[in-house]
Amino acid sequence: MPNLTLEALKALAVKVLVNSQTSQANANMVADALVAADADGLSSHGVSRLPAYADQAKSGKVDGFAVPDVVLTSAAAVRVDARSGFAFPAVAQGLTEAAALVKQTGIVGVGIGRSHHMGAAGYHVERMAQQGLIALGMTNSPAAIAPWGGQQRLFGTNPIAFACPRVAAPPLVIDLSLSKAARGKVKLAADQQQSIPEGWAVDTDGQPTTDAQAALDGSMLPMGDAKGAALVLLVEILSATLTGSNYGYEAGSFFTGSGTAPNIGHFFILIDPQRFALQNFSQRFELLLAAIEAQQGTRLPGERRLRLRRQAEQDGVFIPDSLYANLQQRAAAG
Amino acid sequence: MPNLTLEALKALAVKVLVNSQTSQANANMVADALVAADADGLSSHGVSRLPAYADQAKSGKVDGFAVPDVVLTSAAAVRVDARSGFAFPAVAQGLTEAAALVKQTGIVGVGIGRSHHMGAAGYHVERMAQQGLIALGMTNSPAAIAPWGGQQRLFGTNPIAFACPRVAAPPLVIDLSLSKAARGKVKLAADQQQSIPEGWAVDTDGQPTTDAQAALDGSMLPMGDAKGAALVLLVEILSATLTGSNYGYEAGSFFTGSGTAPNIGHFFILIDPQRFALQNFSQRFELLLAAIEAQQGTRLPGERRLRLRRQAEQDGVFIPDSLYANLQQRAAAG
Repeated sequence: MPNLTLEALKALAVKVLVNSQTSQANANMVADALVAADADGLSSHGVSRLPAYADQAKSGKVDGFAVPDVVLTSAAAVRVDARSGFAFPAVAQGLTEAAALVKQTGIVGVGIGRSHHMGAAGYHVERMAQQGLIALGMTNSPAAIAPWGGQQRLFGTNPIAFACPRVAAPPLVIDLSLSKAARGKVKLAADQQQSIPEGWAVDTDGQPTTDAQAALDGSMLPMGDAKGAALVLLVEILSATLTGSNYGYEAGSFFTGSGTAPNIGHFFILIDPQRFALQNFSQRFELLLAAIEAQQGTRLPGERRLRLRRQAEQDGVFIPDSLYANLQQRAAAG
Repeated sequence: MPNLTLEALKALAVKVLVNSQTSQANANMVADALVAADADGLSSHGVSRLPAYADQAKSGKVDGFAVPDVVLTSAAAVRVDARSGFAFPAVAQGLTEAAALVKQTGIVGVGIGRSHHMGAAGYHVERMAQQGLIALGMTNSPAAIAPWGGQQRLFGTNPIAFACPRVAAPPLVIDLSLSKAARGKVKLAADQQQSIPEGWAVDTDGQPTTDAQAALDGSMLPMGDAKGAALVLLVEILSATLTGSNYGYEAGSFFTGSGTAPNIGHFFILIDPQRFALQNFSQRFELLLAAIEAQQGTRLPGERRLRLRRQAEQDGVFIPDSLYANLQQRAAAG
């Protein structure tokens, strides 16, 4: 299989979605985000998700024609009802509304409810930082993590993303899930009947396990143990309680066409970096980054991602044969 | 040494501060926060800090007479210059201003610059949640943690605190520092010539160490390793870059009367829980907490703290002899 250009991959993704009960406008936004993830080397959040997305749109588990409802509930609060549609149009519209407000208010909050998988969380905040804004974003997701000391999954892996503008460089982007390891790695180990390192997961009795299948049946452990578990709860509250969305344990899977809708939530905060500062923000920020880079063995978050992106823009991205065949078939089916 | 009532301890703390170049109003706010920490069992953030606070006020490293400068820079942005004074008056005034705004704006940001040790971070956010607001707070602090992969301390232990109101119960409060272990524990081990567990710290070459003294000379490791290191950076940016305050590596110590002022920064976000929700916030929040508590072996964050507080309100708190003698001497010195 030769590499696909990003343009070709996006066109293919749009076709798959439009053939699967999704509007052209929504398909464009979903495809753009998935292809961007592939370009950044985040293939687990790229077009590998498309078959599951398409199945869900076809079954109605996600509404591919949904038009998000965006309401400015007060001067700096944007409430978005994704209406059980794809996350990408809901997030984009909420953030666009917020970005137009933040120069007047200094900070804006965006709560997005009844939503779906928002892909790589960094994608959304990076776009805001490209406009000169600091952006913090988070989401809950279907249950993967038990409460600390407990046995049953309640919370998602609940990623946090953060982006900060720079004057003469792309924004600094931080994007991390709060599980110690990605659930995908455990799935892979289970498929290959391999064990997993201690500390990644507990079984259905809440006991530490290195058995990958027992881990899949059980719960992932949070990064940072008890402290990380508290952060998982914090993100669940801001993403799901605050927006009135499903908790992880109420949410249907992101991966299967059947079952109940995920209807999870996201929360974003946009900040105008000039409104809180006693000194020049950009100068001070570059000073900090230089202090980090002056130490051997360090690198700034996102360096690898940006390098891969430049490479993908030039050379395209590699898509596995079986996935490519699957997407081509879906694209042709209309 | 008998236990002291909280009232007696506060009166003693106020006297110590007023005798050490601090205004009565500022002394009251500092004392209130420190005694609250002792009541909650957080003695490392209680009146044990007073000798160092008093020494710094006497030397002018912290300005005990500072009146914070609070400016509403835009509709939802409060900028506070603590003017190298104690943190508590600056945080209190910034949050009071923000709480008055948030019903109109839905969210308010409070940047507090040129500040000092803000004590137990949970203290500040809990007060906001008692007024029905969700509050998120964070601060940087003098250098303790190296950038990931690096050798020299740049960042503080950078705590995050979060509080969320409940209808028929005290607010849920999360309060955690981002170092894997408290630096105080390493200090104690070094004093007793004991080793520390692997994973807590690295030496000045950036190599893992179990030697407590080498760890003190070196850097603490973040909770959650590389992911935690990214969160440490996030908090440093929002607390210090955003507010125009000193970075951890620029900040003077919280513990010594001499040296440069800390002049670090804090950032708070207040949220009106009703402005982002598609469903009733309080009902949904209680549902989540009940789901956590339904699992054996779990407990809600802050349960221990509240139990100790009730006990302290009844029985007072124990203050070690040497500390009590120190405080009495300082209280009498005026």
